[in-house]
Amino acid sequence: MTTAKAPFKVTAGPLPSSRKVYIAGERFPDIRVPMREIALSQASGEPSLAVYDTSGAYSDANVTIDIYKGLPKLRDAWIRERGDVEEYDARSIRPEDNGYKASELKNAKLVEAYPNINARPLRAKKGANVSQMHYAKQGIVTKEMEYIAIRENDGRRAAAANATKPYQKGESFGAKLPKLITPEFVRDEIARGRAIIPNNINHPETEPMIIGRNFLVKINANIGNSAVTSSVAEEVEKMVWSARWGADTVMDLSTGRNIHNIREWIIRNSPVPIGTVPIYQALEKVGGVAEDLTYDIFRDTLIEQCEQGVDYFTIHAGVRLRYIPLTEHRMTGIVSRGGSILAKWCMAHHKENFLYTNFEDICELLKQYDVAFSLGDGLRPGSQHDANDAAQFGELETLGELTKMAWHHDVQTMIEGPGHVPMHLIKENMEKQLEVCGEAPFYTLGPLTTDIAPGYDHITSGIGAAMIGWYGTAMLCYVTPKEHLGLPDRDDVKVGVITYKIAAHAADLAKGHPSAYLRDDALSKARFEFRWADQFNLSLDPETALKFHDETLPAEGAKVAHFCSMCGPKFCSMKISQDVRDYAKSEREKGAVEYTATTQEAAAKIEEGMQEMAEKFKESGGEIYQKVG
Amino acid sequence: MTTAKAPFKVTAGPLPSSRKVYIAGERFPDIRVPMREIALSQASGEPSLAVYDTSGAYSDANVTIDIYKGLPKLRDAWIRERGDVEEYDARSIRPEDNGYKASELKNAKLVEAYPNINARPLRAKKGANVSQMHYAKQGIVTKEMEYIAIRENDGRRAAAANATKPYQKGESFGAKLPKLITPEFVRDEIARGRAIIPNNINHPETEPMIIGRNFLVKINANIGNSAVTSSVAEEVEKMVWSARWGADTVMDLSTGRNIHNIREWIIRNSPVPIGTVPIYQALEKVGGVAEDLTYDIFRDTLIEQCEQGVDYFTIHAGVRLRYIPLTEHRMTGIVSRGGSILAKWCMAHHKENFLYTNFEDICELLKQYDVAFSLGDGLRPGSQHDANDAAQFGELETLGELTKMAWHHDVQTMIEGPGHVPMHLIKENMEKQLEVCGEAPFYTLGPLTTDIAPGYDHITSGIGAAMIGWYGTAMLCYVTPKEHLGLPDRDDVKVGVITYKIAAHAADLAKGHPSAYLRDDALSKARFEFRWADQFNLSLDPETALKFHDETLPAEGAKVAHFCSMCGPKFCSMKISQDVRDYAKSEREKGAVEYTATTQEAAAKIEEGMQEMAEKFKESGGEIYQKVG
Repeated sequence: MTTAKAPFKVTAGPLPSSRKVYIAGERFPDIRVPMREIALSQASGEPSLAVYDTSGAYSDANVTIDIYKGLPKLRDAWIRERGDVEEYDARSIRPEDNGYKASELKNAKLVEAYPNINARPLRAKKGANVSQMHYAKQGIVTKEMEYIAIRENDGRRAAAANATKPYQKGESFGAKLPKLITPEFVRDEIARGRAIIPNNINHPETEPMIIGRNFLVKINANIGNSAVTSSVAEEVEKMVWSARWGADTVMDLSTGRNIHNIREWIIRNSPVPIGTVPIYQALEKVGGVAEDLTYDIFRDTLIEQCEQGVDYFTIHAGVRLRYIPLTEHRMTGIVSRGGSILAKWCMAHHKENFLYTNFEDICELLKQYDVAFSLGDGLRPGSQHDANDAAQFGELETLGELTKMAWHHDVQTMIEGPGHVPMHLIKENMEKQLEVCGEAPFYTLGPLTTDIAPGYDHITSGIGAAMIGWYGTAMLCYVTPKEHLGLPDRDDVKVGVITYKIAAHAADLAKGHPSAYLRDDALSKARFEFRWADQFNLSLDPETALKFHDETLPAEGAKVAHFCSMCGPKFCSMKISQDVRDYAKSEREKGAVEYTATTQEAAAKIEEGMQEMAEKFKESGGEIYQKVG
Repeated sequence: MTTAKAPFKVTAGPLPSSRKVYIAGERFPDIRVPMREIALSQASGEPSLAVYDTSGAYSDANVTIDIYKGLPKLRDAWIRERGDVEEYDARSIRPEDNGYKASELKNAKLVEAYPNINARPLRAKKGANVSQMHYAKQGIVTKEMEYIAIRENDGRRAAAANATKPYQKGESFGAKLPKLITPEFVRDEIARGRAIIPNNINHPETEPMIIGRNFLVKINANIGNSAVTSSVAEEVEKMVWSARWGADTVMDLSTGRNIHNIREWIIRNSPVPIGTVPIYQALEKVGGVAEDLTYDIFRDTLIEQCEQGVDYFTIHAGVRLRYIPLTEHRMTGIVSRGGSILAKWCMAHHKENFLYTNFEDICELLKQYDVAFSLGDGLRPGSQHDANDAAQFGELETLGELTKMAWHHDVQTMIEGPGHVPMHLIKENMEKQLEVCGEAPFYTLGPLTTDIAPGYDHITSGIGAAMIGWYGTAMLCYVTPKEHLGLPDRDDVKVGVITYKIAAHAADLAKGHPSAYLRDDALSKARFEFRWADQFNLSLDPETALKFHDETLPAEGAKVAHFCSMCGPKFCSMKISQDVRDYAKSEREKGAVEYTATTQEAAAKIEEGMQEMAEKFKESGGEIYQKVG
């Protein structure tokens, strides 16, 4: 047996002009909620901007990162002080957990095991339920809930002081959002099942976050090795890298060997919740033969992952035998990996899906660790052709039925959604999901709005993601440029994350989120005032913005110049309109133009005031619609 | 005076697995409409797919390209045989046309003049009107109109034979589209002003195309040198390159020196209509001082460009003096270059915009050449903050007024639109435009749905573009990743074009365009059947799709392998669902499952058929919601 020593290096350090700040709790003074504070140029006199920060300790200049020790166990004391958990001896690790038979171990290329594995995980005391939903339903506000309230408020305090912004007008499909998020509001949303806090008690390293449509729209990044390529070092860095650029959760979709060991490394170093699709590992344990799966093997895999600290499980319990024939005339059959494994199992045994028949048992397990359900859409469409068909919506109805079952057990639950859907059919997905799943959070993959652009599916899906986010989806699962073609590398992961931050933020703006506009305004103001560095630093990807600017105008001087490369020094619309503004102001001060505010009423007044000038204009020989030549 | 010899090379040759085919007219047998035919693998037995082709002769393997001779003058005979045009001596070229004073010429770096300038351009005979709108209103179907009818039908003939597709269900905001486009339908849309055919009689090289919301959604690519950077060779290649990847029109936004010469090279070699913003050149002629502009200088510039063959002009005639003060409290003032120049002029002279007061004279000029108006939105918002404000909508109302004036002169007209708009305010733009501009085609820049992602504004705007295209915008002006940061290079142009082809196609799908789905279906089927090469060849960018695939699985063998790199050989959802399909079929044939079609009715039948199995299942000891452990 050879063990590959992983020479870990992950990306660390603050983003440009940013520092980590921590805000203390009011109800619980021992909680410290991190934010990223972006400082703007001193000369501008503009205040710094605090933004929601998913990057964890890695971007704190004052923290020394040691991947072999893992992140600090932020929530460990919070969990233990509730008095409803107990330590116990962990299930022992078997060769199959890493995809090997015992006989293969001698020649196996095992990746290094994480050095500080906790052999005494936590679970609920007998009869107890440690889910945040369970606490919430009893009226208990947890530290996690106050943490989230502070985190979600980011700029809301500043925003609340402001007048209504123009983009708060117009029809909004989102729910009415409160001006300030309170811990009590968080509790209420969790109790109603309208939001979830994915945080396994065995993943105390997480910085609590919430997924629900009355909060900021979240995004998930998928990572994971496969049988074909990639290594543990790459996967851990992809997790850190994803979180650095804004991923709110990360799913480890590994399917090859060493699954168990890689996952341990990822979880111990992850500040964001980790999701998995346990059926992938279960399938490895039976040599890739779907028919050989049993509920016992699957259940044992759940326990293995519960003990490691996975925060949410994709469970394809809605792929019922009765829906499978409905996929026969599809253009692209069943494209969900989990869905197709279960379909194969169902057909081979001519039996109902064992995840469906054992669903309550899974609930019993999950509530002992506070693992959330992400009910998988195993029959999601894989092409425009198959969107919103009977198989997809049949499964969705079953997911609604299962949601109520999970809630009966106080297990937090979200619902996965498509996939590939043309724009005009997106809203139907959201409306049906809200209706049949009792407003449980929706978590969608895109959707892709056309199938004809492999290589650009971050864009085909970013369009659908922004729209469905606006309509009410709580979390958007990213798609990278490599979708359908290959495994994403580090650059692809970044492009996928930034694209989805755009979609999520555009959705927040369109929903009328009370503080989402602050960053847009700060950046646009910097742009208008030629504060190039501020513009870059406020952007989602300061490095790329700076690089693109420097390709055309590399001189340092150009970054303070009052022009940009599109127009050149003599000819800049921003500069001209600044002149116009000065002129308009002086005209107004002279009383030459009646002017009060930027509304239609003001336009009417100006219209009136202009009558006089129009008269003068005519007198001076000018003619409107003057005919020449 | 030095003259830089331009060593021109442009990209030529067919795209992978594609050949140029020509379809003859029925009404006019001498017209030949080009399409790109994509051949699929012989083994698949799938028919080839003909797609709309903007790339011109450059992608025809049988045509020898000579940039110094320009493209064949396809429409020259069509124009002359109508008997309403005359040749005349062209206006003579002056140093100012290229941005030089006579005194500077000695030391000027003039780019090489196009060698075969036509000194005898065409214009309408005295009293005649040569616009397609004029012909259309008289009931005349021109060759251009039949050409367009054939071109727009691309796959419609095949599609018309098919049953209703699932994505034709649901609410569609687009107009009801005819199954097949007829020349008479084209004529009627032109006559009503609901579509335009931009094709100056002095640009006979164009392959006629149409812009209107009852046709395929079109896209425009901007190119253009600036005072700071880029050369004529680059700009000509950018035009060819843009058209190669799908740009339907190209705007030359050059602002630096050599404007006239560069434009000549571009027009003589362009198979797509060319648009310009003449105020840019006029400003160069007065040394960049907006206040020094006069209508005479502007009018002379229009004549210069009419004679060269520019197909549509952006004219900012809606920037009226009365609207300027409305921009004072904006976050980003006036960001349109043309808008800010005219605002400055208006304020400096305290006079109404000279484009507004001389609008009818401009109509008189344009109808002599059949140049179309693109009425510029000089007061478009430059940030989310400024979207849909009084200045923007005030100007839009004036553009509506001017549209009716242009139609009175039978001058073809489209309307430019924003800009920066959050998603929930996009629809209001479209609805207001349709209402106040009498359904004249809308031509929008994006809109960008958030301001916080410089470096990714092709994506922030691609989201808005897809949505507004679905709502009814006829042409989408692309945005490249360099927007706000610098001048796009060749790669940026390609990314911008592909992103906007995605937006336009997603819009066509959502509008229920009768044949848009054909390419999605063909590609999805290829994907499902592991025909990798067919998948790449059917995609918008076959080169990138192939490259991305090869990064993970470079072996030639992998391209025919029945698995992909995401899942590996043992574990592929596509493979499993193919098995499922076979299984479902055999089950159905055995009569084990009642099954008729992929509808909710079928689901109900299956539900019924399943009862028996459920009974059997229970008898065998299974329990739904079986409690374990």
